[in-house]
Amino acid sequence: MAEQRSDDPAESPALGTHWYPSRWGAEDQRGNGNLMGPEKIRAALALVSRHEIIKLGHPYDAQIPLAPGRLFGLRMPGGPTGGPHGGRSKTVWNDEFLATEIGQIGTHMDALGHLGRQIGEKADHGNIRFYNGNPLSEIWSPYGLTRLGIEKAPVFFTPGLLLDVQGLKGRVMDLGEEITPADLQACLERQGLSETVFAPGDAVLIRTGHGSRFRTEAATFYDGAPGLGLAAAEWLAEKAPSVVGADNFAVDVVPPVDPEVFHPVHQHLIMKHGIYLHEGMKLDELAETHAWRFAYIFAPLPIVGATGSPGTPIALI
Amino acid sequence: MAEQRSDDPAESPALGTHWYPSRWGAEDQRGNGNLMGPEKIRAALALVSRHEIIKLGHPYDAQIPLAPGRLFGLRMPGGPTGGPHGGRSKTVWNDEFLATEIGQIGTHMDALGHLGRQIGEKADHGNIRFYNGNPLSEIWSPYGLTRLGIEKAPVFFTPGLLLDVQGLKGRVMDLGEEITPADLQACLERQGLSETVFAPGDAVLIRTGHGSRFRTEAATFYDGAPGLGLAAAEWLAEKAPSVVGADNFAVDVVPPVDPEVFHPVHQHLIMKHGIYLHEGMKLDELAETHAWRFAYIFAPLPIVGATGSPGTPIALI
Amino acid sequence: MAEQRSDDPAESPALGTHWYPSRWGAEDQRGNGNLMGPEKIRAALALVSRHEIIKLGHPYDAQIPLAPGRLFGLRMPGGPTGGPHGGRSKTVWNDEFLATEIGQIGTHMDALGHLGRQIGEKADHGNIRFYNGNPLSEIWSPYGLTRLGIEKAPVFFTPGLLLDVQGLKGRVMDLGEEITPADLQACLERQGLSETVFAPGDAVLIRTGHGSRFRTEAATFYDGAPGLGLAAAEWLAEKAPSVVGADNFAVDVVPPVDPEVFHPVHQHLIMKHGIYLHEGMKLDELAETHAWRFAYIFAPLPIVGATGSPGTPIALI
Amino acid sequence: MAEQRSDDPAESPALGTHWYPSRWGAEDQRGNGNLMGPEKIRAALALVSRHEIIKLGHPYDAQIPLAPGRLFGLRMPGGPTGGPHGGRSKTVWNDEFLATEIGQIGTHMDALGHLGRQIGEKADHGNIRFYNGNPLSEIWSPYGLTRLGIEKAPVFFTPGLLLDVQGLKGRVMDLGEEITPADLQACLERQGLSETVFAPGDAVLIRTGHGSRFRTEAATFYDGAPGLGLAAAEWLAEKAPSVVGADNFAVDVVPPVDPEVFHPVHQHLIMKHGIYLHEGMKLDELAETHAWRFAYIFAPLPIVGATGSPGTPIALI
Repeated sequence: MAEQRSDDPAESPALGTHWYPSRWGAEDQRGNGNLMGPEKIRAALALVSRHEIIKLGHPYDAQIPLAPGRLFGLRMPGGPTGGPHGGRSKTVWNDEFLATEIGQIGTHMDALGHLGRQIGEKADHGNIRFYNGNPLSEIWSPYGLTRLGIEKAPVFFTPGLLLDVQGLKGRVMDLGEEITPADLQACLERQGLSETVFAPGDAVLIRTGHGSRFRTEAATFYDGAPGLGLAAAEWLAEKAPSVVGADNFAVDVVPPVDPEVFHPVHQHLIMKHGIYLHEGMKLDELAETHAWRFAYIFAPLPIVGATGSPGTPIALI
Repeated sequence: MAEQRSDDPAESPALGTHWYPSRWGAEDQRGNGNLMGPEKIRAALALVSRHEIIKLGHPYDAQIPLAPGRLFGLRMPGGPTGGPHGGRSKTVWNDEFLATEIGQIGTHMDALGHLGRQIGEKADHGNIRFYNGNPLSEIWSPYGLTRLGIEKAPVFFTPGLLLDVQGLKGRVMDLGEEITPADLQACLERQGLSETVFAPGDAVLIRTGHGSRFRTEAATFYDGAPGLGLAAAEWLAEKAPSVVGADNFAVDVVPPVDPEVFHPVHQHLIMKHGIYLHEGMKLDELAETHAWRFAYIFAPLPIVGATGSPGTPIALI
Repeated sequence: MAEQRSDDPAESPALGTHWYPSRWGAEDQRGNGNLMGPEKIRAALALVSRHEIIKLGHPYDAQIPLAPGRLFGLRMPGGPTGGPHGGRSKTVWNDEFLATEIGQIGTHMDALGHLGRQIGEKADHGNIRFYNGNPLSEIWSPYGLTRLGIEKAPVFFTPGLLLDVQGLKGRVMDLGEEITPADLQACLERQGLSETVFAPGDAVLIRTGHGSRFRTEAATFYDGAPGLGLAAAEWLAEKAPSVVGADNFAVDVVPPVDPEVFHPVHQHLIMKHGIYLHEGMKLDELAETHAWRFAYIFAPLPIVGATGSPGTPIALI
Repeated sequence: MAEQRSDDPAESPALGTHWYPSRWGAEDQRGNGNLMGPEKIRAALALVSRHEIIKLGHPYDAQIPLAPGRLFGLRMPGGPTGGPHGGRSKTVWNDEFLATEIGQIGTHMDALGHLGRQIGEKADHGNIRFYNGNPLSEIWSPYGLTRLGIEKAPVFFTPGLLLDVQGLKGRVMDLGEEITPADLQACLERQGLSETVFAPGDAVLIRTGHGSRFRTEAATFYDGAPGLGLAAAEWLAEKAPSVVGADNFAVDVVPPVDPEVFHPVHQHLIMKHGIYLHEGMKLDELAETHAWRFAYIFAPLPIVGATGSPGTPIALI
C-alpha cells in the first residue's frame, strides 16, 4: 500500500505528511516489535541485579474500571462443572466462562489493528485506515481482525525504563494534565539518567499516578486522566521504543489538549510508528523500588484477530 | 483444615493416605509456586546462551480443539467499534468480544482450584475437596473461585527441562499410550542428562507428539492422548517441580490405565503436591533446537477466581 | 419423591407442613400450567371485545435494571456480519451476539426450577429442594436444568385479571410496602368485580406502580419494591391461578416483612403450588384502558434448561 | 430516503426497478406488520374451532443446527446461583447465562434490518442498503441496530395458512429443490382451498419437510434445503402477507436457482415488501391435524436492535 497516503495529512496533526508505508515496509504487521531479538534480551538482562519480579498489571474482576460500552462477565458453570469421574478417583473439575472485551479491559496492550482513523469524508471501510495504511476493508471480519491482530506481536523481552512523573511532581497528576517533553526530561534528570539511556526497542513506562485510582475510583476511572500530549509522544517516538506504557487508561491525556484531535498519542505511536501501547499498568511497586531500569517481559495472549491483549507484564529487576 | 483427611484414602490411589495439609501448610494456596524466587531466576538464566525465545503455546481461534461442553466465540462489534472522534483526527477503534471457557482452552495452565475429588458417597459441596483439602463449599461462588483461583499463582521464571518422549520413541505416541518412569529416565539418558538435573521448582515439560495433532486433528484431539501414568507422576513429584507440562491435553494419559481412576496425574500433582499442570503446549520447535534446558517463563493471566490461564509460556534458550 | 417432606416445615413459613408432592403428582414438572387447555382459551376469548393487543413487557437493552450479579451485553459482529454473496444480488446480513442471564432479566417468567430452598443445615445438592421436592442434585447440570426448566412450561392462553393496587392507593406504592389480602379485595370491589371472578388457571396481574420506575430509576430498581406479602400470596394461591404477575421485580415485597423469610411469595407460589411468576411487567397501558379482564397470552422462550423466559406477554382485550 | 433508488436495479432480480420507498412510506420500519390490528385478530379468531394450541417452533439447546459462524452456549452459574437467604426460609435460586446469536438461531423471525444488499461496487456503509433503502451507515451501531431492529415489529395475531408442499409431493423435499407458484397453487387445490383464501396481513407457512432433518441431521441442516424460488416469492408477495414462514432454514431454496443471486426470496420479501420471514419452523404437528387455517400468534422477543427473534410461534386451531 506504499502508493497510498493521507489525502490531507493536515487533518490529523498526529500523523504528519506521510504516515505510511512504515519504516518496516508496506507489508509489515509488527511495527517496532521487529526490534525484538537476542540483543535486546541481552541488554535487558544486563539491567537485572536482584533477580526479583514485579508485576506491572492489575488482576481482572467484575469491579475493574471499564470503558463505556464494554463489560466483564465471569460465570462458573455448575458446581463442580464436571465429574465425578472414575469409580475410585471420583475426579471433579471446575471451569469458568468469560464474556468480555478481552483485549481492551484492565491492564492491556493494544494491537496495531486497534486504532485507526477515517480519511476523507465517507466512513466506508476503505477510508478507515490503520498502521501501514491498511484499510478496514482489508483487515476486518466479524470474527476477528484478519491483519494486525495481537497474534502478530512478538514476545517482548527488552530493556525497560520507568519515567516517574508522579514522583517528579510529588503528587498524583490531575485529570487532563498533559505530560510534556520537558516533564520527561526532568524525570530523567531526577532519576539520575540522561537521554543516552534510550535505545531502539526499549519499553518506556510512564507513571502519572492515575493507576492509584484504578481500584478506588473505578466508576470514574475513564472520565479523564493525566497522560502524554502529542509533543511528548513525538519526543518518545524518536527514541524508537517498541512499547510505551502508562498507568492511565489510554497513555494519552484525556480530555485531549486539542478537542479536535482525539487520542493523538495513539495515532502517532501506533499508526505512524508501530509502537505498542500498554495501558492501565500498575506501576507503584516498581516506582517504590527506584528500579528505573529493568527487563520488561510480556508475552501477549495470542487470540487470533484480537485487538489487544490482557495479561501481566513483568519487570525483572 | 489440617485436621481433615480423606475418609478412605484408598479410594483414589492417586492421593495416598494423607494428601493434606500440603507441605506448604494448611492455608497455602500456591503450592510449589512458593518455590519461585531470585534463586530460581538466577538458575534459569544460567541456562540461557543464545538469548532466543521460543513460544511454547498455540494461538487461540475458533478452530482449536475444545473439550466437550466448552466453546470459543470471538465477535468483533461494529466496524469500527468506536469513532470517528475528533473533528480533525477522526480517530476510530476496534474492540473484540470473547465468550469462552477462558482458562480451559488450548494451551493453558490449571489453577490449583481446577481439579478435585469427591470424598464419601454424597456429592455435596462439603465433600468435594481440592488442594489442601479445601471443600468446594469454601472456594466456590457463581462468579469465580474465592480460593485457589489462578490469580494466586506466581509468575513462573525457573529452569525448564524438556523430556522428549516422542524423540525417544522415534514416533508420535499413540492414544492411550502410557509414559512410565523408565521412559523418562531413558529420555534423560538419550538427552545426555541425569537425574541430578532436577531441582525443586523447575518446570518439566513432556513431549508426546500429541501436539502435532492440535491443528490437524482438532475434532478428535480430546478423544484420547498419550501421556503420563501415575507412576511417572509420582516419580516426577519427588523432584518437586513447580510445573509439569505436556503437549497433550491433560498431561495424563487418556483413557486412563485404570478405568476406575480418572486423571490420577491431575490428582497426584495438583491436589497432593500443589504442582501446576501446563496443558496443550507446543513443544516441537523447542525439541528441534535440542535445547533441553532453558528458562521457562510464564505469567498467568490473573483473572480473579478463574480455574486456569491461557497464554504463551516461553522458553528462553 | 412423594415420600420426602420438609424435615422441619416450620423453617419456612411460606411452605407449611407438606409442600410436596404437588397436587399434580410427584413427577409433575408443569404445576398449574396443567390447567391450560381449550376451556381456558374459550374462557379467555369470551373476555375479548375490542380485539386489541396491549404489550405487557418492556423491551430489552443495556439500560434496563439488572439484579446484582447479572449483566446484559449485545454486540453486533462485523458490519455487515455476512456477505456480500451472489455476484448480482450482493446479499448481506446482520447478526447480533447476546451474552446475558437470558431468563432472569427485565420482564420475565420464572421456571419452576428457578427458586428453591435449603432444608437442613448442610447446603449439599441433595438438601436444596425445588417444586415437588426435587433436589438440586437431580435437576442440575452446568449446561442447563435437567428438570423444571422453562421448556416444560405450557403456552399460556387464559383469562387474565389485573388488580390495580396503584389505582386503589392513588399513588405509586413505596419500597417495602406490603400488599395484603384486604388490598386485593378492595381492588376487586373498586374495579366492580367480586371473588367469583377467579377461576383455576387464570393469570392474575398486580400493579404496584413500581413499573413506573423501570426506566427512570434503573440503577436502584432492585433496591426494594412494593409487592405481595405472604398472606396475599396464600389468598391468591387458593384461587389456583396458573400465573401471578406484577410490575415489580419479584412479585414479593422487598425487603421482606419478616427478615428471616426471604421471598416467601416465591416459595409459596412456585414451590408449593406450581404457580408461575411473571416479573417486571409493564402494566400501565393496560390499567389505563380499565380492561381489568382480558386474554393473557404468553409463549415462553423454550431454551432447554433455562430458569426463566424473557418475552412479551400480551393482553388481548 | 424516497429519492434514493438502486443505481442499477437489474443487479438483483429480486428487487426490480424501484424497491423503495416502501408502500408504507419512506420512514416506515414495520413493513407489512402495519397490517396487524383488530380486524386481523377477528379474522384469525374466526378460524378457531377446537381452541387448541400447536407450537410451531423447536426448543433451543446446544444440539440445534447452527449456521456457520454462529454458536449457542448456555451455562448455569454456581449451584445454586444465589442464596441461601433468610434464616428461616433459606431461599436459593438458579440463573442461566446465555451467549449466542440470539435472533438468528433455531426457529426465528428475521427483523427488517437483518438482510440487505450492496449497491454499487464499494462495500461502504452508505452503499449497503436495507428495507426502505436505509443505508447501513444509518441503522448500525456496535451495540445493536438503531433502526429496523426486531423491537419495531408488531405482535402478530393474524389468520394463518399452511401450504403443505411435503404433503403434495408425498415426500420430504430434496436439498436445492425449488418450490414454484404452481406448487403452491396445487397445494391450495389439494387442501381444498383457493386463491381467495389470502387476505393482506395473513401469515403463510410453507412445509417442505426439511424440518424433519432439524434434530436428525443437525450437522448438515444448513448445507442446503428445499424452499421457495423467486417466482413463488413474487406470487406470494402479491397476496401481501405479513409473514412468510417455512420449516427450512431460510425460506429460500438453497443453493439458489441462479448462483449469482443469493437469497432472492429474502431480498424480495424483506427488503422490497417488508414481509417478515419466519425460519426453522416446526410444522409437522400442524400438518398432521389438517388444520390448514388457524390463528397465527407470535410476539417477537423485543431485544432492542436485534436482527431477529427466537421464540415459539403458535397456531390456535
